[in-house]
Amino acid sequence: MAFTARIETALRASLDEALAGPVPPLLAAALEYAVFPGGARVRPSLLLAVAAACGDDAPALADAAACAVELLHCASLAHDDLPCFDDADLRRGLPSVHRQFGVPTALLAGDALIVLAFETIAKAGAERPLRLPALLGAVARGVGAPAGIVAGQAWEQEPTPSLQAYHSAKTGALFMASTMAGAIAAGADPGPWRALGDRLGAAYQVADDLLDAMASEEESGKSAGRDVALSRPSAARELGLQGAADRLDALVAEAAASVPACPGAKALREIVRMQAARLVPKQLARNAA
Amino acid sequence: MAFTARIETALRASLDEALAGPVPPLLAAALEYAVFPGGARVRPSLLLAVAAACGDDAPALADAAACAVELLHCASLAHDDLPCFDDADLRRGLPSVHRQFGVPTALLAGDALIVLAFETIAKAGAERPLRLPALLGAVARGVGAPAGIVAGQAWEQEPTPSLQAYHSAKTGALFMASTMAGAIAAGADPGPWRALGDRLGAAYQVADDLLDAMASEEESGKSAGRDVALSRPSAARELGLQGAADRLDALVAEAAASVPACPGAKALREIVRMQAARLVPKQLARNAA
Repeated sequence: MAFTARIETALRASLDEALAGPVPPLLAAALEYAVFPGGARVRPSLLLAVAAACGDDAPALADAAACAVELLHCASLAHDDLPCFDDADLRRGLPSVHRQFGVPTALLAGDALIVLAFETIAKAGAERPLRLPALLGAVARGVGAPAGIVAGQAWEQEPTPSLQAYHSAKTGALFMASTMAGAIAAGADPGPWRALGDRLGAAYQVADDLLDAMASEEESGKSAGRDVALSRPSAARELGLQGAADRLDALVAEAAASVPACPGAKALREIVRMQAARLVPKQLARNAA
Repeated sequence: MAFTARIETALRASLDEALAGPVPPLLAAALEYAVFPGGARVRPSLLLAVAAACGDDAPALADAAACAVELLHCASLAHDDLPCFDDADLRRGLPSVHRQFGVPTALLAGDALIVLAFETIAKAGAERPLRLPALLGAVARGVGAPAGIVAGQAWEQEPTPSLQAYHSAKTGALFMASTMAGAIAAGADPGPWRALGDRLGAAYQVADDLLDAMASEEESGKSAGRDVALSRPSAARELGLQGAADRLDALVAEAAASVPACPGAKALREIVRMQAARLVPKQLARNAA
């Protein structure tokens, strides 16, 4: 099955578990809305690509891990869009979760998705319990304190965050968790896969800064210009548009070069380059052409 | 080591992990504040008591599970006190987390504590990985959708929640998770321990309703009268004060009677009765005397 189909199937199965039983109707609707239809499913695709490169000998566990990182990503979007953070009206071209269901339900949906992520991995791990501690640990480090997504969001509350610590936690950490979890799910050593996630995560954050600085809301499907409005650290503001675009190119090249020698290395490098091409804001691509 | 010492030691070790590294200072302070000093640590004490009754052959895993349920409880308090829910100024006699650190940091602290709970169990589970899937599943069911704490809070957003579904999810679920996780951590069948958690959780919720309806803020250490102010389902409102007090007595008796036959049954029944005595609001005890 193609990665996309595996991811959507795993997400559907996981959501169905969460919605089985006497779940409050508004919460159920918000959970569904926060996860479907999704965005590009970048992180779970990356996770499955690494698992495939490592032999993917336990595909159900890789699917569960992929599902978990996407659920955690969806949770972070639902929380980050809240009025106390980005106060964003739009996400993926639709009203953000709290605009659709209210702040309390959006907050609870995020909480429930975090729990569901770990529950999903635990359930699939019954077949390969020896891999569970490392797998859960890698995923948890991508989202929690001291250096996961939550810490990244928390750096926005600090008067003088460093761009590096902020970006690394806010975006890099879950990319790194994705590549490392892909390896662990397939029984491989995660260490050699750390750099790929780190570089791709950094590239993705630079691209996001560029998009926020340049793109229309129509193109990005979310509220634009928030970095400046909220005085957030931004590569586009720190390096200028061209400087940030150069940095993006360099990071993608580093990511491709970091793929360790393995049977699936060539295919994975191709995936990295294809994903990277999607990152460049259209307006910048036009300007460069 | 006494239960209380084991719980505080495990919480300290878990927090230290979360705070090791370049964690944003405000988030770090909020995490510390949300967990220390704690309340009565009722759920982790119950978990350790059940683990002890089941032989406690893997005390490090039981400690991690106890720590996790308390972290999840602390997370739920940080989120429930937020302005979009209870808008509570006080908790355990001190300013609530968002009153002390602001709404964004309180929300992120709750998120980080949820992640840390699962990370803590996963780490300790490396010694007993075969127990991890069931243990993580039991804990997750206590907090997530469809019927854990998050669902309980979500019932408050519904126009006509049933008192039973609401109480069962909001309070009963994490008590049930505690007794069942205590058994699983010790390698025992969790099924026979479900009723104890269910009855104690129900008793605790009735006691909380009574306290909210009767007690001063000084006695409860948190904002009182919120159930009426927020039109929440409440046993005190539904059954009257005496009816609710009678219900509390019946639930505690059922809890004690539900303790399955095991080497530690007698000691555990004593713990149940001692915990229960703490539940009765002082004013009601005085009235009855």
